[in-house]
Amino acid sequence: MTRYRLLVEYDGTPFMGWQRQKHDPSVQAALEAALARWCGETPVLTAAGRTDAGVHALGQVAHFDLDTPRDPATIMAATNAHLRPASVAIRTAEAVGDDFHARFSATCRHYLYRILNRNAPPVLDAHRVWHVIRPLDVDAMHQAALILVGQHDFTSFRATRCQAASPVKTLDALTVTKEGEEIHICARARSFLHHQIRNFAGTLEHVGSGKWTPEDVRGILNARDRSKAGPTAPPQGLYLVAVDY
Amino acid sequence: MTRYRLLVEYDGTPFMGWQRQKHDPSVQAALEAALARWCGETPVLTAAGRTDAGVHALGQVAHFDLDTPRDPATIMAATNAHLRPASVAIRTAEAVGDDFHARFSATCRHYLYRILNRNAPPVLDAHRVWHVIRPLDVDAMHQAALILVGQHDFTSFRATRCQAASPVKTLDALTVTKEGEEIHICARARSFLHHQIRNFAGTLEHVGSGKWTPEDVRGILNARDRSKAGPTAPPQGLYLVAVDY
Repeated sequence: MTRYRLLVEYDGTPFMGWQRQKHDPSVQAALEAALARWCGETPVLTAAGRTDAGVHALGQVAHFDLDTPRDPATIMAATNAHLRPASVAIRTAEAVGDDFHARFSATCRHYLYRILNRNAPPVLDAHRVWHVIRPLDVDAMHQAALILVGQHDFTSFRATRCQAASPVKTLDALTVTKEGEEIHICARARSFLHHQIRNFAGTLEHVGSGKWTPEDVRGILNARDRSKAGPTAPPQGLYLVAVDY
Repeated sequence: MTRYRLLVEYDGTPFMGWQRQKHDPSVQAALEAALARWCGETPVLTAAGRTDAGVHALGQVAHFDLDTPRDPATIMAATNAHLRPASVAIRTAEAVGDDFHARFSATCRHYLYRILNRNAPPVLDAHRVWHVIRPLDVDAMHQAALILVGQHDFTSFRATRCQAASPVKTLDALTVTKEGEEIHICARARSFLHHQIRNFAGTLEHVGSGKWTPEDVRGILNARDRSKAGPTAPPQGLYLVAVDY
């Protein structure tokens, strides 16, 4: 048995998320089907993060095992050929030791949330950004973001159906920057709660629009009450950018 | 009569280009139809540049006239509403003097050509880049680009069906830079010949892959012979970024 590690890019738009489901299209099922179509085995993939419906990945990491060893370059080329025209591609493939685990070996996950902050609707970036028309104060959003960095009980930003054992997480970095007409929220942590970054984005948008001050976010965090924070921002602005091991 | 100036973004994928055609979808026809649907007039648009099928625009400029003056904010909002879900949006609208002409008043046009230079096919940027698998030498491409800057007879880079009166143009800037996995070719001039930038891109790709040296490009330029230069690069990598007046 040989274990392989994949770096995967996908457009989340046509999928119900990473995880295989009984009827709906998933990234996992698309990759597994493409692999099975040429390699004569039916490997099961494990990913670093099970992204939700509509969420994109530039650098998802997944592993799987094969009984018959294959050249990693062949795995990449053959699987990519069988994925077309699915909105998924393997960026790199490599053989790794049996002790590598895409989910449990990960030491850091990097996410990006993109807001298009202008009057006109997105065109070239349709399904790639959250469109917010009202002008947002990026400096206020960044000040609020800094309050969230560190080890906290993030219950206020946790989806009710989150399955994590504890709501306490350590957020290593959360920055808000202006990039032309876009606002980029970059988040970095060993792991995140379900919907944590989209709930950050929905809350920071309320700060940017002036509904809340950065200091209000401290009260929201300390309340440990999901109903105090902002709404869950839409999935199409979120990208799993990279995973460190 | 009042003249209006529009800043327009579009995804060129579903269109046969800017210019209205008898049967095929065009950006011009989409915009004119959306305007006519609410304003009670049938204005004709004139653009800064008639982009080809599949070519995108971040900042195309167009003008048109209305008998009944309208608030520019209304023109933008109402037209954008009627454009949905077409891959076109008005970014800004403003009233201008009768002497403004989107095409003839332009003093400078800025284009970007994006190459995705990696093994894996484009996913999130499908239909947004030219995918080139073989690794390209960006420094060599930039050296070759510098040879093309200035006033030259660009016959070697001119489409056979180009209608410009003269093949002599002044290229103000042509740069090649590495942006992560992408290579960006940025071109700036008062005006361009038909296919000039895509022919530049197809030729620079041959330099990047090592088929030609930068110095070979001088010979190609001086030959004034279209058959000496590289192929016309595909349209989906090209963007009209901005027009100066």
